[in-house]
Amino acid sequence: MKKPLIVQKFGGTSVGSIEKIHGVAEHIIKAKNAGNQVVVVVSAMSGETNRLMDLATQIDSVPTARELDVLLSAGEQVSMALLAMTLNKLGYPARSLTGGQAGITTDSQHNDATITHIETSMVNQWLEQDNIVIVAGFQGTNELGDITTLGRGGSDTTAVTLAGALHADECQIFTDVDGIYTCDPRIVSRAQKLDVIDFPSMEEMAKKGAKVLHLPSVQFAWQHNVPLRVLSTFEPGPGSLVAGEECHADVCGLAVQRDVVMIQVDNGSLSALLTQCQMLGIAVSNVIERADWTGIVIKQDARPKLELVFHDKIRNSEEVSLLTAVGKQAEGLVEHAQALLGEEGIEVPFICCQKQSLALILSPAHIERAANILHDVYIKANIAIDCQPKHAFLG
Amino acid sequence: MKKPLIVQKFGGTSVGSIEKIHGVAEHIIKAKNAGNQVVVVVSAMSGETNRLMDLATQIDSVPTARELDVLLSAGEQVSMALLAMTLNKLGYPARSLTGGQAGITTDSQHNDATITHIETSMVNQWLEQDNIVIVAGFQGTNELGDITTLGRGGSDTTAVTLAGALHADECQIFTDVDGIYTCDPRIVSRAQKLDVIDFPSMEEMAKKGAKVLHLPSVQFAWQHNVPLRVLSTFEPGPGSLVAGEECHADVCGLAVQRDVVMIQVDNGSLSALLTQCQMLGIAVSNVIERADWTGIVIKQDARPKLELVFHDKIRNSEEVSLLTAVGKQAEGLVEHAQALLGEEGIEVPFICCQKQSLALILSPAHIERAANILHDVYIKANIAIDCQPKHAFLG
Repeated sequence: MKKPLIVQKFGGTSVGSIEKIHGVAEHIIKAKNAGNQVVVVVSAMSGETNRLMDLATQIDSVPTARELDVLLSAGEQVSMALLAMTLNKLGYPARSLTGGQAGITTDSQHNDATITHIETSMVNQWLEQDNIVIVAGFQGTNELGDITTLGRGGSDTTAVTLAGALHADECQIFTDVDGIYTCDPRIVSRAQKLDVIDFPSMEEMAKKGAKVLHLPSVQFAWQHNVPLRVLSTFEPGPGSLVAGEECHADVCGLAVQRDVVMIQVDNGSLSALLTQCQMLGIAVSNVIERADWTGIVIKQDARPKLELVFHDKIRNSEEVSLLTAVGKQAEGLVEHAQALLGEEGIEVPFICCQKQSLALILSPAHIERAANILHDVYIKANIAIDCQPKHAFLG
Repeated sequence: MKKPLIVQKFGGTSVGSIEKIHGVAEHIIKAKNAGNQVVVVVSAMSGETNRLMDLATQIDSVPTARELDVLLSAGEQVSMALLAMTLNKLGYPARSLTGGQAGITTDSQHNDATITHIETSMVNQWLEQDNIVIVAGFQGTNELGDITTLGRGGSDTTAVTLAGALHADECQIFTDVDGIYTCDPRIVSRAQKLDVIDFPSMEEMAKKGAKVLHLPSVQFAWQHNVPLRVLSTFEPGPGSLVAGEECHADVCGLAVQRDVVMIQVDNGSLSALLTQCQMLGIAVSNVIERADWTGIVIKQDARPKLELVFHDKIRNSEEVSLLTAVGKQAEGLVEHAQALLGEEGIEVPFICCQKQSLALILSPAHIERAANILHDVYIKANIAIDCQPKHAFLG
């Protein structure tokens, strides 16, 4: 019988020192000893990318994109080799592969490349010989054989894409938190770790401000039906599993996004505005339509770009915060949520409903209190009932 | 008309900081502006290889050979990218290539690989588009696509082999001395820089202790008829050229080797001894045949290996020093040299003559004084007559 295949991803903090690399090796060995084939994706040691970037910017404030990729990709080459040495030393045969060696082909968009194809034969060959295969995250080569690096969250993308290409049974993202929470614990101290969350809910959470997983990674994993697990590198525990498409909780999570603005235009300008956003690569998280105007919610840092080309048509733009409830019954809670917050003196100027999602647009001053109120009422009691622990592949 | 092609090699000290990399870029630009195509081979920044090696040995006193190559090769990847960025910033299009990308194929002897083939199409393609091509020294990939590193002097080997494969007009080895000297200036303070030296003399000098160029690099360059030039990275000047096969000087140089021993055996054991040396990979620099015994001169650090398997046949072994005069008339100076040193109270117990080479085997206590005496008499006056400056490719 074919052994299950797990892809594990460890970020820069996880491999930040020889001692930490040893800790990472223990996670890998645990998975291997549990009878799995293991492919590991690693980032550069924390601090290393900054060190290299600093050398580059001493030369040129905007270094050649191609050469910056050559430079930065050396970072993962160091961490992957050290990890492979550690595993070998502990008696577990391991081989490291650069992005190019692992068959990861990207487009030629240096510094922000997209994976176009993964030719898995080399990884499979080493796996068949019972090796642990370590792959450099964040990098690949283009059709010319030039080294490229992926954009933000690149190592997660490598892990999820590789898991898809290898038909892995699970992709485990090791990070500095122990799982996915019902809300950001820095905002809602009573937030609870979810044992499991479905893909549509996780996608919506990621779109609306949850930072634990990068949106494209969630979307890719869903699309390729690869269960994703978020775990802590430093604390034991099963973490949180993202799997399936059905949400069982009335409200399974609250996403908070602070750094957003609402741009208001005349109704007649909406389609031009949305076209403009698309051309500029600006994600529109909500659209509010009123009788005499329309508002769109975008990230604050996108505002200058949009204002530059569209300023004569913008009638108002204000900083807001976004509180999004995600879950089976979320969209049905419009009036209830508004009343609940009203009782506490919090005005909700705008609300957007989408399937299994309710977005409240609030003054930034109210966001923390509003999140705590809704969390206490809608979420707290659901956890035990709706989320069954699934500790697959963790012995 | 096809432009001349120069390969320039810069060692770790030459690229040891951003400031020094800038200095290296100026050498390259000078060659480029003089109308040459330029291929550059770089080592890792000085200190970087030690830093990486230190990380590896924290994990394992003998790290996996394959993974050590992955790790160490990241060092050149950093320096080559920084150098390419610097050239681009200065307005000279440059592209860096790893050993593998540059088509350098080696055998699979990790940590001590030998170049088996260079497929130059990628380098030539970038050259044709008027780029300066920067190639990582010291590394290649084997037939499997695994990263390998070459042995000692690896970057010199890369430069010379690449120059051969590209049919380069000159291979310039930039280092921390300004050329090849008639003798090691730390021993003979009146030693003079040679403007030119022929390949057979340089080979003999390298075999007998001169350290400025690695023997295999000299041999390869000779074999492929690539003129070699040794220059200083930090001081201007034409350096010394190694070219041609004819020696014009009676004595063009003196090589000194201190770390040697003479092993004496019965005459009947000579062939067994030489066979043993060959099997153990021990280079025999001289053979002295006497009526009742034979001596061979080998490096001190090879003695334990030889004694281990041959001790019952060794009748004597003593530390000696080797002073080798190289040049057209060197072998004819046996008696004259012996008399000259005898006048100064220096006994020369053994002498070996070979074509254009006279080796004196002396007590280590006498080597410095003997070198100075012979240098004053045989060499000093020859320089001006026999060596014509050839400043090709340096404007």
